[in-house]
Order: sequence, then C-alpha cells, then structure tokens
Amino acid sequence: MKMVKVIGSVTSTVKLDHLSGFKLMFVQGVDLERKGKKEYYIAVDTVGIGEGETALMVTGSTSRQTEATKGKNIEGTLVAKVDRIDLE
Amino acid sequence: MKMVKVIGSVTSTVKLDHLSGFKLMFVQGVDLERKGKKEYYIAVDTVGIGEGETALMVTGSTSRQTEATKGKNIEGTLVAKVDRIDLE
Amino acid sequence: MKMVKVIGSVTSTVKLDHLSGFKLMFVQGVDLERKGKKEYYIAVDTVGIGEGETALMVTGSTSRQTEATKGKNIEGTLVAKVDRIDLE
Amino acid sequence: MKMVKVIGSVTSTVKLDHLSGFKLMFVQGVDLERKGKKEYYIAVDTVGIGEGETALMVTGSTSRQTEATKGKNIEGTLVAKVDRIDLE
Amino acid sequence: MKMVKVIGSVTSTVKLDHLSGFKLMFVQGVDLERKGKKEYYIAVDTVGIGEGETALMVTGSTSRQTEATKGKNIEGTLVAKVDRIDLE
Repeated sequence: MKMVKVIGSVTSTVKLDHLSGFKLMFVQGVDLERKGKKEYYIAVDTVGIGEGETALMVTGSTSRQTEATKGKNIEGTLVAKVDRIDLE
Repeated sequence: MKMVKVIGSVTSTVKLDHLSGFKLMFVQGVDLERKGKKEYYIAVDTVGIGEGETALMVTGSTSRQTEATKGKNIEGTLVAKVDRIDLE
Repeated sequence: MKMVKVIGSVTSTVKLDHLSGFKLMFVQGVDLERKGKKEYYIAVDTVGIGEGETALMVTGSTSRQTEATKGKNIEGTLVAKVDRIDLE
Repeated sequence: MKMVKVIGSVTSTVKLDHLSGFKLMFVQGVDLERKGKKEYYIAVDTVGIGEGETALMVTGSTSRQTEATKGKNIEGTLVAKVDRIDLE
Repeated sequence: MKMVKVIGSVTSTVKLDHLSGFKLMFVQGVDLERKGKKEYYIAVDTVGIGEGETALMVTGSTSRQTEATKGKNIEGTLVAKVDRIDLE
C-alpha cells in the first residue's frame, strides 16, 4: 500500500456509471514524515477519510477487491486511515 | 486514477481488430494545477472527452472493466471528464 | 498504451516454449515528437511492425489479451502501427 | 520481488475488514548493499519478519496469492526473510 | 519484457512454501549495451541462466504464467537467455 494524504476532491458530471456514488478524492503521496511528494492520484474512499487525513491507498487490480468497487472501472481505493506511525 | 489532458490523436490503419472503432487519444499527465507533465500515453475514450479537456484515466487491467473494452488489448481508458478540482 | 519505436531485435535460443515463434523486438519509448527516450523494452509483434517504425505497445496483463499471446509468459505486445500523430 | 527493510509499523483503527488481523509494516526499499532508498511502502507480513530485518516483498496481484491474503484488499506482502546476499 | 543481468543470488531459510525449490537470483536491469542500471530485482529462473548472463525477465501477473510458477507468490521470472542483440 502507499501512504497518501487527502488534499481535495474532483467533481465530474460526465463519467462512467461505474463511478456514480463515489466521492473522487484528490490525494497526494507522502513520505515517512507525512510530507507531501510530487505524486498525485484520484482515488475513491471506502472507509471515511476526511480532508487533510492520512490514508493507505491500494492501486491496480487490488482497487477492485472490495464489495463496493468489484468489477468497476476504479483504480486507487483508500482502505485504511493512518492513526499512528511508529519508526524504529 | 490519473488526471490527464487530451492534446491530440493518433491515426493507425494497421492494428489489432480489438482497437477498431476506438478513437486513439494522445493524452498528457497533468499536475494539480492542470499543467502538463512529461508523461504521455495513448488512451481510448468511453465518455466523450474533447481535445484540450481534462479527464481521469485508468490503466492496467482496470482499462478492461467497461462493456466497450472488456477482454480487449487496450491499456489506458478515459472514464470521467473533470469539471472542477477543489483543493483544501 | 505507450508509443515506442522498433530499434532492433533480440536472439534467444534458450527460452520458455511460450516464446517460440515470436520475433523479440527491441523497442525504445518515444516522446510526442517521436524522439527516443531512455526506456527500453523487449516486445512481441502481433501486427507486422518493421524496424524504425513507431508502434503502440501494451504491457502487463493486457499483453495477453490477443489470440497469439493468451496465457503466455509474454509482457509487452505491439498492437498498432502509428501512421500519424495530430496534436492540437 | 523487491528487497526491503522493515523500519516501523502503522496503526489504523478505521480500516476495511480485509486488513483486520494483519500487522501493517512500514518498509523501505534497499539497494544491493542493503542501504535505504527513498521508497516507502506499507506491507503485510506472512512469514514473521522483525523490525530492522531485510525481506522480499511482492506487489500488485501477486500480493494476493497466499492463503492469508487471497481476495483481500492488500497490496505489498512480505514473503521471505533475506539471510544472505551473494554477489559475483 | 525487461533485459537484466544475473549478478548474484539471495539465500532465505524463512520463506513462504511457494518459494521452495526456486533459486532466488539477484538481477540488475541493463541498457541496450548491457551496462548495468540502478535497478535491482530478485527473480526466479525457469530456463537455466548462469551468473553474469543476460536474460529477459517478466514481471507482475505475467510471472505466474509458467507451469512452475502458476498461482505462486512469485514476482519476476526469467524466461529467456539473451544470445545476441541486433540494433539497426
């Protein structure tokens, strides 16, 4: 999984039916100190991540392993909210 | 999903049957301010994106999850038109 | 899809049976002006691309969606010859 | 497979059920001398890797080929502990 | 496929059963003149590649298309030995 921060959202009226009902989150990759990197993705949220919060994102075919995203044209799914990072 | 801008198209007469009937769009990755990055892809369009417009693109096996692209040799499918980006 | 140029070929006598009968093309990624980038791949050809010509390549699991490559240990398939690029 | 070092862990209380029962390891890519690179991932462990140890990680759909991770929203699985590296 | 050179091997006693019986090769990506790049992977060998030799590697789900690697937690499989490269 990649660690990302939710920095905004995207509005789309013309889109595949598959994407209906999902909030499209604008997320940014972060390093181990949660500082933003120059990597941006649009992801869907399955667990309730708020703006500014850090989450774990799965990509590729893994994005479609949830009940909500199965068989859908979705790439990038937020699957966990990061509460704490413990480094050695 | 990645955010891309349609900057042109590609014409191909010799190609796999799978690609027949699809317009081959020349797209460029964009950053959060919609400025072009040095990343170029050829994608097919399933929702009606015009040249100069910003879209969301899915890649890899996700490209084949629509009725139109199922089981086809297609990598890179435009699935949504971006109307508005809201950043925190 | 990625846009690539065929710049040579690879000869292999010791290889998986899956690869028998395929010409192994040495291809280079190109930018929107067809200039070579420092990205090289070995791909198989399903449509008849000659050396020096520009083609569209699919990668990952998409490489195995043709009759010829189905279920085979092949990654990187040329699926279309690029005749013309039209930029805005 | 990629070679990575376990450098910490992540705590998440709000997450998909799929992730329950897995320790979320914070791992860093390493080079051939086991020096850390600027590549970080969150992975699950299936073999018992301790902090500071070097492991092999599989990604993408390969992450879901174990009994424990099958069909789950998991991307990045540690599958082997590296005891020794022999270079020519 | 990617072109790689075998530069060593990895020993692992604690690992998933899936990996038993495979030699874990330490491979390095090479450019078109077979010079080493800063890209390292751990791969399994299905055709008999010796140390110092150049091979073609498949990655991702393609790694699991051989009889030997089917359904296994393996990412990175050597599928051909490179005898000769002919550039235009």
